[in-house]
Amino acid sequence: PAKMKIRKPKWNIKASEMSNKTFNPIRAIVDSMKIEPNPNKSMIRLSIGDPTVFGNLPTDEEVLHAMKEAIDSGKYNGYAPSIGYQSSREVVASYYTGPEAPLDAMDVILTSGCSQAIEMAIGVLCNPGDNILVPCPGFSLYKTLALSMGIDVKLYNLLPEESWEIDLKQLESLIDDKTSCIIINNPSNPCGSVFSKSHLQKILAVLVTHSCLFYSFYFIQVFPGSRYYPIAPLSTDVPILSCGGLAKRWLVPGWRLGWILIHDRKDLFGSEIREGLIRLSQRILGPCTIVQGALKDIINNPSQEFYSSTIHIMKSNADICYNSLSSVPGLRPVRPSGAMYLMVGIEMEHFPEFQSDVDFTERLVAEQSVFCLPATCFEYPNFFRIVVTVPEEMMVEACNRIQEFCQQHYEPYSNHIIQDIDCDK
Amino acid sequence: PAKMKIRKPKWNIKASEMSNKTFNPIRAIVDSMKIEPNPNKSMIRLSIGDPTVFGNLPTDEEVLHAMKEAIDSGKYNGYAPSIGYQSSREVVASYYTGPEAPLDAMDVILTSGCSQAIEMAIGVLCNPGDNILVPCPGFSLYKTLALSMGIDVKLYNLLPEESWEIDLKQLESLIDDKTSCIIINNPSNPCGSVFSKSHLQKILAVLVTHSCLFYSFYFIQVFPGSRYYPIAPLSTDVPILSCGGLAKRWLVPGWRLGWILIHDRKDLFGSEIREGLIRLSQRILGPCTIVQGALKDIINNPSQEFYSSTIHIMKSNADICYNSLSSVPGLRPVRPSGAMYLMVGIEMEHFPEFQSDVDFTERLVAEQSVFCLPATCFEYPNFFRIVVTVPEEMMVEACNRIQEFCQQHYEPYSNHIIQDIDCDK
Ligand SMILES: Cc1ncc(COP(=O)(O)O)c(C=O)c1O
Ligand SMILES: Cc1ncc(COP(=O)(O)O)c(C=O)c1O
Repeated sequence: PAKMKIRKPKWNIKASEMSNKTFNPIRAIVDSMKIEPNPNKSMIRLSIGDPTVFGNLPTDEEVLHAMKEAIDSGKYNGYAPSIGYQSSREVVASYYTGPEAPLDAMDVILTSGCSQAIEMAIGVLCNPGDNILVPCPGFSLYKTLALSMGIDVKLYNLLPEESWEIDLKQLESLIDDKTSCIIINNPSNPCGSVFSKSHLQKILAVLVTHSCLFYSFYFIQVFPGSRYYPIAPLSTDVPILSCGGLAKRWLVPGWRLGWILIHDRKDLFGSEIREGLIRLSQRILGPCTIVQGALKDIINNPSQEFYSSTIHIMKSNADICYNSLSSVPGLRPVRPSGAMYLMVGIEMEHFPEFQSDVDFTERLVAEQSVFCLPATCFEYPNFFRIVVTVPEEMMVEACNRIQEFCQQHYEPYSNHIIQDIDCDK
Repeated sequence: PAKMKIRKPKWNIKASEMSNKTFNPIRAIVDSMKIEPNPNKSMIRLSIGDPTVFGNLPTDEEVLHAMKEAIDSGKYNGYAPSIGYQSSREVVASYYTGPEAPLDAMDVILTSGCSQAIEMAIGVLCNPGDNILVPCPGFSLYKTLALSMGIDVKLYNLLPEESWEIDLKQLESLIDDKTSCIIINNPSNPCGSVFSKSHLQKILAVLVTHSCLFYSFYFIQVFPGSRYYPIAPLSTDVPILSCGGLAKRWLVPGWRLGWILIHDRKDLFGSEIREGLIRLSQRILGPCTIVQGALKDIINNPSQEFYSSTIHIMKSNADICYNSLSSVPGLRPVRPSGAMYLMVGIEMEHFPEFQSDVDFTERLVAEQSVFCLPATCFEYPNFFRIVVTVPEEMMVEACNRIQEFCQQHYEPYSNHIIQDIDCDK
C-alpha cells in the first residue's frame, strides 16, 4: 500500500488547460443553483432551448420520410467529403443564394451542428491573443469556444430599450488592431430580437472600415409583422461567414447538421480562409451522411403550412407571455420579434429580498415550480430568459405563477434598498 | 479603384495558425501526386479506406432497420446530453464490459466518429509543449491533431520483420517527463497487424512505470486464426482511454458515431479527466441522435453471420493479395492478421527508376491504373498500403497488374544504385 501511494503522484495526470478553459457558464450557474420545485406544483421548465421536448412542435412528416429514403437508398453509408457531399452543399447554397449575394456549393461547408460551424469559424479566423467581439446578452458558446482557444472576448452591449439593437458607438470603441472578428447573432438568443434593415446597414458601416464579420443567423423564425433581412445582400464589401443549421427551423436539433456560408464577393478572405476551413473540416470529417443525403428533401419538401404553424405557435406564446408579464409590477419583459425566447427585466430594487437574478429564479422554482434561466448565464444580470416553445396551457399557467410570485415579493418602496444596505452592516 | 486597392491590405485576413497547422499529410501527398491512369485500363483504387465504396460489403439489414425505427419512434429528434444518451452509453458499456475491466455508462463518451474521440482524448490529456508518442507507420490523424494543438509528436517504430510489433526499447527511450500520452493502435491502420497477448503485456510493462495510455482499437475485425485481446483487462494500473466507433465493424463510416471508453480502475485519471471530457463534449454536442437512438439494435441485432462474412471477405482478399505479391521479386508484403489493410515493402534498390514510394505508386497508376497509397503518407517510405475491401475479381486483377508492373521495372543488379548516384552528378 505504501508503494501504491507513491505511484499516484507519479502518474500525475491532469486535464489539459484547454479542457479547463472550455467553460460553459450556463452549466456552471445552473449546476450551482438549488433547483427544488414546490412539491405541490408540477414543474414547468421554461429554461430548455430545445423545441422538441414537449411534443407540441414535431418536425414535418416529410422530414422523417426524407431520412428513411436516404437510409433505404443505401447511398449514404460511406465517408462523404469532409466538408459534405457536393450535392448537399448545393442544396444549402440554392436555399440561401440570391442575386445580391450569390452562393454556390463551394461557398458551403457542412458541419456537425451550428456549434461546430461556430467552432470552425472562430478557429479559422482567430489566433491566441486576438480578440473577438460578442453580443451581451448573448449565446454563451461564442465565449466558451474563444476562451478555450486563448482568444480574448470583448462584450458589446445590446440595448433593451431599443429592442436589443447594438450600441454601435460602444461596439466601435471596442475594435482594435487585435480584433479578428465580430460576431453578430440575429435573430438573437437569448433576446428573440430581429434587427431592422437600417440597423444592419449601420452595423455594416461600422464594420466596413474595420474588421471581418462572422454572423450567426441561427434562427430564421421571425414573427408575422417583423421581417428578417439576411445581412450578406446588404453589403458588397464585408466578408462574412454565416453559421446556421437544421436544428430550430426543422425542429431536429439532435441531428447535428449545421453549415457555414462563405460570403466574400470582394475576395477578402481569399483562398486562405476557404482552405483553412477545409483543413479544419478534416479533423472530424463532417456531419452524419444520412442527414446529408436527406438534406434536399428536408429543406425543400415540408409544406409552407409546417413553417407557418411553428411560427404561429411561438408568436402566440410570445404574445401571451409578453402581455401577461407586462402588467406585472416589477417586471419589464421585452417584446420579441422572432426566435423562441424572450427576456424579462427584473426591477431588483422592488424585490429587495433577492440578491440577484439567480436568487430570483431559484426562489421562483422553490415557490412556484417554474424554472427560467437567470440571464447571468448570458452575462446580463437582472434579467431572466423565457423559452416560448412550451404548450399554450403551460405558458399561461407559468405566467400566472410568475405573476403570483412577483405580487408576493414586490416592494413598492424603493427606500428598502437603503434599509437593506444598512441591515447588511 | 485606387481606394479599392488600399482597402484590401487593411482587412488583412489570414487563416489562423491552428488551421494552418491542421495538416493532413495524406491529402498533401495525394494532391501533389500525378494520378493519371492508363486510359486503356480501368482504374482500380486500392487506396480508399472506406469499405462501402464497392458495394460488396453492405451493412446488415438490421442496422438499417434500427435507424428507421429510431426515426419512426419520434424520440430522438431533440438534443441529447452532450456525451450521449444514458441508454446509448449503457449499450456501448455492456458491449465492452468484462469482469477484469468493468465499464458502465459513466465510462463511455459518445463522439462524432472515432476521429472526434481521438481529438478529445488528445485534447484532454495534453498541453502545448507536451509530447505524445505515436506509431510509425501510423494513422496520420494522431499527428495532425496533436501538431494543430501545439503538442509535439515523437514516432516510435513498428517492426515489419516482427509482424509490426513495437520496438519497445526505442519506445521506452522516447518517453520523457513531457510525454503526456502514448497512442497504441491495434489492430493497426495501415499495417493490418494484431498484437499478441504477450506483446500487449510487454507494452503495459513499459507504460506502468511511465505515462498514461490512449488506445485506439478502431478495427475489431481480426482474421480467423488470430485473436484480438483488448488491452484494458491485461492491466490493473494503466489508465486507458480507448477510442472506437461504428464505422468499420458495422460498415457505416459516414454515420459518424464513435466513443471513448474510460478504463481507470486505480482512479488515476480521477474526476479531472472525466470532467474534462464532459466539458470538451459541450463544444459541439455529440453525435447524431438518430444513430444514438438506433445504437442498441445496431450493435446487438446483426447476426453472427454478418460479422463473419465481412471478415471472411477481407481475410480471403488479404490472402489473395499476400500470396500473389509474395512471389513478386522486389516486393515484400507483410501478412496482415486483421483490419482491412496490408503493407507492402518495396526493395527500392531493385527499382532504380523510381525515387521513392510516391514515385513508384504514381507510375503504377500511370501504367497499370492501380492506385495504392504510398506509405510516405504514414511516415514510412519505401512501402505502400493496399486496402483489401475491394471485390475479389478486382483484388486478383490488381495483383496481376502490380506483378506485371514490377516485372517490367525490376532490376536484379543492385549495383544500379551506385550507377544512379553517379548519373546524378
Ligand atoms: C445562436 C445559436 N447558435 C448556435 C446554437 C447551437 O446550434 P446547434 O444545436 O445546431 O449546434 C444555438 C443553440 O441554441 C444558438 O442559440
Ligand atoms: C486507426 C483509426 N482510427 C480512427 C479512424 C477514424 O474513424 P472515424 O471514421 O470513426 O472517425 C480511422 C479511419 O480510418 C482509423 O484508421
